[in-house]
Amino acid sequence: MGKAQEVSPLAPARLPDLPPVEGVRLAAAEAGIRYKGRRDVMLALFSEGTTVAGVFTRSRCPSAPVEWCRARLGGGIARALVVNSGNANAFTGMRGRAAVEATARAAAEAAGCRPEEVFLASTGVIGEPLDPTPFERVLKHLAAEAVPDGFADASAAIMTTDTFPKRASATIELDGVAVTINAIAKGAGMIAPDMATMLSFVFTDAPITAPVLQAVLAEAVETTFNCTTVDGDTSTSDTLLAFATGKAAARGLAPMREVTDPRVTRFRNVLTSLLAELAQLVARDGEGATKFITVEVTGAESDASARRIGLSIANSPLVKTAIAGEDANWGRVVMAVGKAGEPADRDRLSIWFGDIRVAADGERDPAYDEAAVSAYMKAREIGIRVDLGLGRGRARVWTCDLTHGYISVNADYRS
Amino acid sequence: MGKAQEVSPLAPARLPDLPPVEGVRLAAAEAGIRYKGRRDVMLALFSEGTTVAGVFTRSRCPSAPVEWCRARLGGGIARALVVNSGNANAFTGMRGRAAVEATARAAAEAAGCRPEEVFLASTGVIGEPLDPTPFERVLKHLAAEAVPDGFADASAAIMTTDTFPKRASATIELDGVAVTINAIAKGAGMIAPDMATMLSFVFTDAPITAPVLQAVLAEAVETTFNCTTVDGDTSTSDTLLAFATGKAAARGLAPMREVTDPRVTRFRNVLTSLLAELAQLVARDGEGATKFITVEVTGAESDASARRIGLSIANSPLVKTAIAGEDANWGRVVMAVGKAGEPADRDRLSIWFGDIRVAADGERDPAYDEAAVSAYMKAREIGIRVDLGLGRGRARVWTCDLTHGYISVNADYRS
Repeated sequence: MGKAQEVSPLAPARLPDLPPVEGVRLAAAEAGIRYKGRRDVMLALFSEGTTVAGVFTRSRCPSAPVEWCRARLGGGIARALVVNSGNANAFTGMRGRAAVEATARAAAEAAGCRPEEVFLASTGVIGEPLDPTPFERVLKHLAAEAVPDGFADASAAIMTTDTFPKRASATIELDGVAVTINAIAKGAGMIAPDMATMLSFVFTDAPITAPVLQAVLAEAVETTFNCTTVDGDTSTSDTLLAFATGKAAARGLAPMREVTDPRVTRFRNVLTSLLAELAQLVARDGEGATKFITVEVTGAESDASARRIGLSIANSPLVKTAIAGEDANWGRVVMAVGKAGEPADRDRLSIWFGDIRVAADGERDPAYDEAAVSAYMKAREIGIRVDLGLGRGRARVWTCDLTHGYISVNADYRS
Repeated sequence: MGKAQEVSPLAPARLPDLPPVEGVRLAAAEAGIRYKGRRDVMLALFSEGTTVAGVFTRSRCPSAPVEWCRARLGGGIARALVVNSGNANAFTGMRGRAAVEATARAAAEAAGCRPEEVFLASTGVIGEPLDPTPFERVLKHLAAEAVPDGFADASAAIMTTDTFPKRASATIELDGVAVTINAIAKGAGMIAPDMATMLSFVFTDAPITAPVLQAVLAEAVETTFNCTTVDGDTSTSDTLLAFATGKAAARGLAPMREVTDPRVTRFRNVLTSLLAELAQLVARDGEGATKFITVEVTGAESDASARRIGLSIANSPLVKTAIAGEDANWGRVVMAVGKAGEPADRDRLSIWFGDIRVAADGERDPAYDEAAVSAYMKAREIGIRVDLGLGRGRARVWTCDLTHGYISVNADYRS
């Protein structure tokens, strides 16, 4: 893993600077967990009264930090977040649990809170015991050094095979009060080489109760991170946590306590946009990616059905290799629709590459022009649209192509 | 597709010669459907009274020949089989259906039977109209030339990206009468580049009714072809057909009319072995394959659950690339078990690479020796065993690794 990677050709030209979020301070340090010469641990401290919500991997073999967070979420309160890269602390048995507990204790001591108020995430190798000593060594310093504008360092410290840090920010006015939402993420695939995990953390000064924040987060994830795939491999450690300090209340914003509150809808819409931005950045940083692909499915029996069909297309190695080869091989899209196990009627199916309809009513479009489609396939960003002609269900899924680069990152690094 | 491919390094040292099956005659010809300079159409003729059974793709976008065969299977009678490579006749709308009907008519005329007694399969490009004229031109000659020892030519004519033909044979004694079962297959992936389809055909002189043959075939496919994967992509055209001429009856073998007949059990066991042999050949000819992988799952809640977990491992790009890289990355096996969506308890999970236990009881085996496992990973044939510690369900799944060769075959061939 030592070898430096080129930045993905699909990376955005510039990354946004994230403003402070009142009640949040961050710091990152070099703890030497696996990498040399780079920061690999971040600490975020939250002011008293910060609420928390989380969404985690559905894996039956979750990591120790995922189990810890799940168990602590019921409290609804967070005072610190500790994240490390280099070791996932997954499939590490009793020792893994002990490492999480030791780290939570050390962070609690440094932050002046209870261990139950500390949230943790780890990303890196699976199955290697994680020594808590480096955390114990650095956490006190990190707590002393934490600053409001530490988001850039934090977003870099959590990277594994990512080729660029991922962050996004928005400010909205609710009842005339400015509320900030910052979000950072890591992931270069649902899972990267040895480096399990998609992690994302949201920080806001909105005053919002934990149950409402949980409902908003769960809904926002459905059309964003859950519509992103690089290789279809689900990590043992996927973690999305949102922290709300509530500091905007002091500036006159009444707390949001009900999901039916219209301000919650606005908050959710902005949060969804931010997560969509990060989800797309994850696909843009997919291992070996040379093309960013948006799959749009319309006319399905339901939104859920549309998403499953979209993911079947986005996960198909044959669709992804065809796009890598700039090959307008829409037959493979037919195949992927057919194998999704969802309602579909071959004779109502239409397919577009970009704006060019290539297939309609169960056969090749009569106006099909191979040259036009081939020219389109040379673009960096490819859109595939499928209309099933059955109902009103729709979904949008983001992915990248499957290239020699993916094989190199995942197979060659030992040789 | 014109470029000649090297024979897979996993191909068997020699291919068996198939003996004649009484009541079956075969021939192959160059019809120029897509390939130049090779045979691309085969015809098999069956004696009167031949029964037929079939299992087909579950794709919602099946090819025109699959629809034809499904509709004709009720009759239970077959007199001819026509298979072509180079064009799948899938997603070809009304023209596809018309092409199937025209070919069935031409074959029926050549064979002296009714079109309803003709079975068809096509493999190749999806979405390109299939012109029936070449069939009409060659079928009469093929019928005249068909011979009992035409299996070698037939197994070669149905190849697409296969690097070697796939065939297997067995003779069993039932009530002292020798019965022959021959089987051929093609497929270099569930689906190959542009070349959808796993096709397999079984020929026997056993006297067995169509319903019993159907039951036997459906059961045999479960633990064989349905436990094989190259890339997890299911074709629009997967077809397995079995033809039983019943000619062994003239040699004193009473017809098999009941699935409870103990002779049927023996017949099914032999047929299952043959299909297992072919299924493994398909994985050995997987596009770009350099390692043949057997995944064994034990201790699952049920056989079906074990198979789904086995397929989750066998389909994981990260597991497959790790094996290509000769990397004993068992953490990826944990990941694939966790994402399968099947009952699993991380803390009861054990994993072996070959005979070496690498993980047990939810963590790395205390005796783990990286050097020993790394040495094992250099073998051509890799065994992964997972025990879930939950129940008695078990399954065995065959696959191959994911290499640069797969990307080259599927992405590079236009460049």
